[in-house]
Amino acid sequence: MSMTQESIDEFLNRLASSDPTPGGGSAAAVIGAAGAALVSMVCNVSLGKRGCEAAEPELRAVLARSETLRHRLTLMVEDDVSAFGGLMGAYKLPKATEEDKARRAEAIQSSLERATRVPLDCARACGEVIALSRRAGEHGYQHVISDAGVGVSAAYAALRSAALNVFINAPALKDRAFAEQAIGEIDLLLAHAASESEAVYALVRGKLGG
Amino acid sequence: MSMTQESIDEFLNRLASSDPTPGGGSAAAVIGAAGAALVSMVCNVSLGKRGCEAAEPELRAVLARSETLRHRLTLMVEDDVSAFGGLMGAYKLPKATEEDKARRAEAIQSSLERATRVPLDCARACGEVIALSRRAGEHGYQHVISDAGVGVSAAYAALRSAALNVFINAPALKDRAFAEQAIGEIDLLLAHAASESEAVYALVRGKLGG
Repeated sequence: MSMTQESIDEFLNRLASSDPTPGGGSAAAVIGAAGAALVSMVCNVSLGKRGCEAAEPELRAVLARSETLRHRLTLMVEDDVSAFGGLMGAYKLPKATEEDKARRAEAIQSSLERATRVPLDCARACGEVIALSRRAGEHGYQHVISDAGVGVSAAYAALRSAALNVFINAPALKDRAFAEQAIGEIDLLLAHAASESEAVYALVRGKLGG
Repeated sequence: MSMTQESIDEFLNRLASSDPTPGGGSAAAVIGAAGAALVSMVCNVSLGKRGCEAAEPELRAVLARSETLRHRLTLMVEDDVSAFGGLMGAYKLPKATEEDKARRAEAIQSSLERATRVPLDCARACGEVIALSRRAGEHGYQHVISDAGVGVSAAYAALRSAALNVFINAPALKDRAFAEQAIGEIDLLLAHAASESEAVYALVRGKLGG
């Protein structure tokens, strides 16, 4: 059974426990998926509503993409568990002989690469959810517009969370070119998401008259 | 069956759908509960670890509070659905006679008050989770310290999300004293959480060397 087939109560219990997985990476993926789901909800409610007719093609395009990202982020809940498990497994490999040591070092490096790529992909997907939440906030039906503000807040939290896992794993990578590219990309994603998520939140709050 | 007994997949499907509930308020409560769970995890992993002995009383105090808040936030998932349902029900009451109208107006006001109090309570709980995540980030075991950064990001997103529901419902309240107190408190919580969550995230990132 995949982790997202478990109940929310069970997931939260396991998250709170001292078990290493699920951890922050899986939580980030769930929170990002919730952000995408809220963007989808704004589109699903708005389609067919009076006043939203002209925006229908835009809302349909946003919905198609937010649903793709929601499913991708949902799969990342499990990817994070397996990337973390792979890394823990690699550290536990025998290191008695030189051959053992070489095999272990190689396994650690390939696991570290995966444990960097998974959160990097999560952060990219969340960056896209933030962009979609702006379009949903601009064109969505007034009565559900606040959900675009919840969606952007969730996606930003997930992006920041995923970034922490890149910062943990990338420094130990021997492939310095990839490590630096990953950290550089995460820094850009973080900087862009910070200003963009504030702008979308302010847009939504402004529409509420708050 | 309460909503948090449903699977994550099912919750996300319902969130994305055009059904009015669960909406952003329930998502905020789940995300806040995940933030509290991550603070609990940092404490649960750190207790008994070498180097964390001196911080054990602090970690136990943080854990007791984060678990209380996690359970409270989990219950708010359902509270939000019921507050929203109550409000929708009140708007649908008959308004044929003057007596009908008076009864409906009263039901709307009491539902609006509840639909303001629930997200206000959610935001207060998330503000506390942010404060706890700082203590977990300061005293927790290095290998799980990033989870304090995920926890604070989740709690801040949930607080901002809950605030939107206060901004939606408070303006229509006839009890202006309560409405203004609620909006004033939410503005204070938002301002404090913005700087505090940045500080905790920077603290955690600094400990990762990122």
